[in-house]
Amino acid sequence: MSKILRINTEKLTFNFEDIPAELAGLGGRALTSKMVLNEVPATCHPLGAANKLIMAPGILSGSPAANSGRLSVGAKSPLTGGIKESNSGGFVSQKLARLGIAAVVLEGKPAGDAYSMIVIKKDSVEILPADEYVGMGNYEAIEKLWTTYGAKTGVMCIGQAGEQRLKAASIQQADLKGTPGRAVGRGGLGAVMGSKKIKAIVVDDKGCDRLTMADPDAFKAANKKWVKMLNDHPVTGQGLPGLGTAVLVNVINESGSLPTKNFRDGRFEHAQDISGEKMVENIEARGGIVAEGCHPGCVIKCSQVYNSADGKQLTAGFEYETLWAFGAHTTIKDIDDIAMMDRLCDDYGLDTIDTGVAIGIAMEGGLLEWGDGKAAIELIKEVAKGTGNGKILGNGAAFVGDALGVDRLPVVKRQAFPAYDPRAVKGVGVTYATTPMGADHTAGYGVTANILKVGGDIDPLKKEGNIELSQNLQIATAAIDAAGLCLFVAFAVLDNEDGVQTIVDLINAQYGLSLTPDDVVSLGKSILNDEKEFNKRAGFTKADDQLPDMFDEKLPPHNVDWGFSTDELQETLNF
Amino acid sequence: MSKILRINTEKLTFNFEDIPAELAGLGGRALTSKMVLNEVPATCHPLGAANKLIMAPGILSGSPAANSGRLSVGAKSPLTGGIKESNSGGFVSQKLARLGIAAVVLEGKPAGDAYSMIVIKKDSVEILPADEYVGMGNYEAIEKLWTTYGAKTGVMCIGQAGEQRLKAASIQQADLKGTPGRAVGRGGLGAVMGSKKIKAIVVDDKGCDRLTMADPDAFKAANKKWVKMLNDHPVTGQGLPGLGTAVLVNVINESGSLPTKNFRDGRFEHAQDISGEKMVENIEARGGIVAEGCHPGCVIKCSQVYNSADGKQLTAGFEYETLWAFGAHTTIKDIDDIAMMDRLCDDYGLDTIDTGVAIGIAMEGGLLEWGDGKAAIELIKEVAKGTGNGKILGNGAAFVGDALGVDRLPVVKRQAFPAYDPRAVKGVGVTYATTPMGADHTAGYGVTANILKVGGDIDPLKKEGNIELSQNLQIATAAIDAAGLCLFVAFAVLDNEDGVQTIVDLINAQYGLSLTPDDVVSLGKSILNDEKEFNKRAGFTKADDQLPDMFDEKLPPHNVDWGFSTDELQETLNF
Repeated sequence: MSKILRINTEKLTFNFEDIPAELAGLGGRALTSKMVLNEVPATCHPLGAANKLIMAPGILSGSPAANSGRLSVGAKSPLTGGIKESNSGGFVSQKLARLGIAAVVLEGKPAGDAYSMIVIKKDSVEILPADEYVGMGNYEAIEKLWTTYGAKTGVMCIGQAGEQRLKAASIQQADLKGTPGRAVGRGGLGAVMGSKKIKAIVVDDKGCDRLTMADPDAFKAANKKWVKMLNDHPVTGQGLPGLGTAVLVNVINESGSLPTKNFRDGRFEHAQDISGEKMVENIEARGGIVAEGCHPGCVIKCSQVYNSADGKQLTAGFEYETLWAFGAHTTIKDIDDIAMMDRLCDDYGLDTIDTGVAIGIAMEGGLLEWGDGKAAIELIKEVAKGTGNGKILGNGAAFVGDALGVDRLPVVKRQAFPAYDPRAVKGVGVTYATTPMGADHTAGYGVTANILKVGGDIDPLKKEGNIELSQNLQIATAAIDAAGLCLFVAFAVLDNEDGVQTIVDLINAQYGLSLTPDDVVSLGKSILNDEKEFNKRAGFTKADDQLPDMFDEKLPPHNVDWGFSTDELQETLNF
Repeated sequence: MSKILRINTEKLTFNFEDIPAELAGLGGRALTSKMVLNEVPATCHPLGAANKLIMAPGILSGSPAANSGRLSVGAKSPLTGGIKESNSGGFVSQKLARLGIAAVVLEGKPAGDAYSMIVIKKDSVEILPADEYVGMGNYEAIEKLWTTYGAKTGVMCIGQAGEQRLKAASIQQADLKGTPGRAVGRGGLGAVMGSKKIKAIVVDDKGCDRLTMADPDAFKAANKKWVKMLNDHPVTGQGLPGLGTAVLVNVINESGSLPTKNFRDGRFEHAQDISGEKMVENIEARGGIVAEGCHPGCVIKCSQVYNSADGKQLTAGFEYETLWAFGAHTTIKDIDDIAMMDRLCDDYGLDTIDTGVAIGIAMEGGLLEWGDGKAAIELIKEVAKGTGNGKILGNGAAFVGDALGVDRLPVVKRQAFPAYDPRAVKGVGVTYATTPMGADHTAGYGVTANILKVGGDIDPLKKEGNIELSQNLQIATAAIDAAGLCLFVAFAVLDNEDGVQTIVDLINAQYGLSLTPDDVVSLGKSILNDEKEFNKRAGFTKADDQLPDMFDEKLPPHNVDWGFSTDELQETLNF
C-alpha cells in the first residue's frame, strides 16, 4: 500500500501521491488519526471545506489474515467536535489494500448542490454524477450499485441522514449479502461525506493480484495459529458465532449493568424479550442466517440476517448495542419493532446507538411515551422526510436533549453512551470518560475483565484497577484498529500469552519487519497521543473527560455511583 | 441592600440571608458573576438542579441617580455553556433595591411539571401556583399581572420559549407601559427560569422608604452634574432620544459594517427601509411614542412604542440590533414585518439577536427563502406551537446551523453575532471573540472609537489599537453593569474627563465611601477575572476565543478580513 488517493470534491479531480516517510507503515486508525492531526485545522467547522474524510485499510487488510478486513474512517467529528475514527467491516478495506491504496481522502467542498459518486478500479478513478442516487436509502442504493458494478463490489454510501448532514449520520458499507448491514456508525462521519456531496464510493479490485507476502510460509504458519486461537476461545469460537453480540443482553442484564429507562436501573424486566436467545429463535423460525461474517475472511461470524415473520429480510448485523439502545434504554420490548428501527437506521444511514439513545431522550422530554415502539418507528421515519423533528432526532441524543431542554443526558463529548452502565462496569466507564472519541465502548472495552473475566478479573463495581484496565485496553485497541483487525480478536488475544506475538508475526511476515509486542504498545500510545493532541487544539480540556452529573445517582440493583474525580480520570491517558 | 433572598424551587420555600463579607458592596454583574462562580459547579448541566438563576440590582439601583435601573441576571448559560450576565431595564431593579434585596436566587429544580410564580413585597414573599399563566405569552401575562398586582409593578416573566427551556429564551420585564418591551435577552436565561418552573416574578416596593443617602447633598450635586453630562452629549442627548438605537442603521451601513445576508456584505441596499428615520416616520404617522425610557429615571429615552398602520401597538423597544438581525442579515426589508417579529419575540420570550440570526441561518440552510418576511414570521410562530422547527429555531442560531448542517455560522461560544461586522469594526470584533459572554456587543462596544469617534479614534479596519480598545471597554463595561447603569452612559463618560469621577461621586455619596476611579478599574478587572475563571473551569480554552473561519473571507465594500490570531486575542483579557 504505497499510494494516497486524494479527491478534490470542489473541482471533482483526483490525484495519487506517494506515502510520505512520516506515514510509512501506518494503516487504519494510526493513519487516519495522524492525517487528521496533520491536515485538518482543529478548530475548523466539521462540515466546512477544511475538514477531510479519510478512509484507510488496516496494516493487515487485504492479506489472508483472519478478521483483518476492517476499514478505518477518520475526520473531525460533527458530533463531538473532536477527532474521530470509526471502523466497520464490508468489502472496501481489503479491496483498497489490494489496489495498493493506503488512504482515500475526500477534500474541499463543492459550491453547488450536485452530488457525485466515486468509482475506484485497478486502472481508473471516476468521479461521476450521482443524481439518480440522491434521496435514496442505502438498501436501494447498494442494490442498484451492485447491479451496476457487480455483486461483492465494495460500497460505502450515505442515506438521507448523511445527505442532510445530521450529526448521527453514518456511512454504511455493503455487507456480504449486499445490504447496508455494516456501519461506520459513530460520530457523524456520514455528515462529513454529505457535506462533500459524495453519495457513494465504489471499490472494485478486479484484476489485482493477491498481496505479496515478504515471508509467505511464516505468514501461513502465523495465520493458522491465529485462526485456531480465535476458534478455540469460548467468546470468539462459541458465544459470538452462536448468538452474535446479542449474547450480551442476558449477560449484562444479569450483571446489573444493562442501562434501563435512560440509565435509571441496571436491569430490564423484559431483557429476555430482546435477548440473543430470542433473536436466534426468531431467525431459526423464519429462515434467516444465524452466523455471518462482516467481511470476507471473518472466522468469528457474529453477524446475522434477521427476517420478519413473513420470511423477508428485516435487518442484518443486529447488534447488542442496537437491541439495548432501542430496547432497554427506551423500555421498548418488541424485538421486531427494534429490528425495524435497526433497518431504518441502516437504510437512512444513522448510528443506531446515538439514535436509540436519542429516542429515549425524546421520551424523557415528552415527545413520545416510554416503551412505545410504533411511535419510535414513526419518529425515525421523520428523518427521511426531513421534518423538524426528524432533524432533531437525526442529530443524535445530545441534540435531542438540547432541543427538548432535557438535562438527563448520557453523553460524553456529545456522543451517546453505549449499552453498559458506567457505574456498574467501571472499566468501560473510564473509557467513556477519557477516550478522545466521546463515549465509546469499542475504544477500550472494559467489559472484558469486568464482566466476562477475559484477560483478568477486575471488580466492575469498584474503582480499583479500572483506570489501569481502561488504559491498557485503549492502547491495545488503538493498535488493533491500526491493524485493520476486528476488535473481537481481543477476547482471544487477552486470554492467550501468544496473542499479541501472533499479530506481530503476521505483520512481520507480510512486510519483512522484525517488530516486537513492545512496538504494538508504542503504536497504540502514539495513536492516542495524536488524538489527544488534536482534541487539545480543538479546545478540549479535562472538563470534557468526565461523566455527566446524572451518574452521581446510585444505580440499582447494586446501588453504586460513579465515584471517579476528574483528576483521577486524567491519569488514564497520561503516558 | 443587605439581604439575599433564596428561593428553593424544589421545596417551594424561601429564606433571607445576610450578605456575607465577601460579597459586601457588590451589585449587578459584580454580584451575579461572583455568586455564579462561587455557587454553581462549572460543569453542571445548565438546566439541572445545580444551576442557579441570580438577579441583582446594581450598586446605584434604587437611588435617584439617572439611568441606574438596570437589573443584572446571572447563571450558567444554556446557550454558551459558560457564565452569563444579561441585564435589562424595567421596574424590578429599583424595587428590589428599595426592598433592601441585593439578590434573588432561584435554586434547585422541582420534580414535577407544576409552575409557580413568586411575589415579593415589603413584608412578604409568596410562592404561588402559576397554572393559569402557563402557556401564556408575555403580553398577556404582564397585562394580567398588572391587573392583579397593580400597574407599575415590577414583573419578570418567561413566555412559551422559556417554558420549553429553549436556548434563545429570554426573560422579559414589564416596560413603562406594561408591555414586555425590555429583555434579559442573551444566553438563554429564560430557559434556566423555565427549568426551575418559575413563570413570573412580581416585585412590589409599596411601603418602602426611599433609599437613605450617606451624604444627600453630595449625591444631589453629583446627580445634577450626571444628568447634565448625559443631556449634553450628542449621542445620549440627541441621537438616542431622537431615533433610538435605530439611529445606527444608516450610520453603520454608511461605514460599511452592516452585516448583510449572513455577513456577505457590509452594506444593505435597503438599509433606508429599516432605518431609525423610517421607524420614526412610521411612529409619528401612526401615533406611537418616539422617545421613552426603559426604566423610571432614564434621561436618555432610547425606547419607543411602534404602532402598526391601524394605530395599535405593534412593538416596543425596537432596537437597532433587532432591525438588523431580522432585516439586513436576512435581507427582509419590510420594517413592519420586522416589528411583528420583534413583537413575537417579546411575547414568546426570545432573544431577538439570536432569533434573527437564526432566521438567516435557516435561510442559508434552505428552510425558507432569503428576504421572505412573511415566511419568517410563520417560522417564529412555530416556537409557540412547540413544533420541531419551532424548537430548532428557538434554540438559536448555532442550533439552527447544526440542525440544518450549515457551516457558515456567525457565532462565538455558540452565541450569535450582533449587528456589527467584526472585520469592519474590529474593536467590537475583539470583544465578540474574547468576552466570557459569547459574541456580545454590549460587553465592550468598540463601535464607540471605531465608528462614532467617541472616546478616541481607532481605525475600525486595522488591527492596531483595537485589542487595547476592547480591553479598556470590557473593563469599563463590567463596572458599569455592576453599578446598574445603562451602558449608554458610556458615550458621555468616555467623552468627559469628569465622567468616571462623577459615577464614583454618586457611589461615594450614597454609601459614604471614598472610592477613586482606580477602584472602578479594579472592580471591572475583578469581574472579568471571575467570569474567566468560571469559563476555564467549565472547559473553555483559547480555542473558544476566536471567530469562525468564515471571517477569513474579505468583506465588501472595504474588502477587509479579520486578521487576528488566537494568540493575539488572548492578550485582550490578560491583566
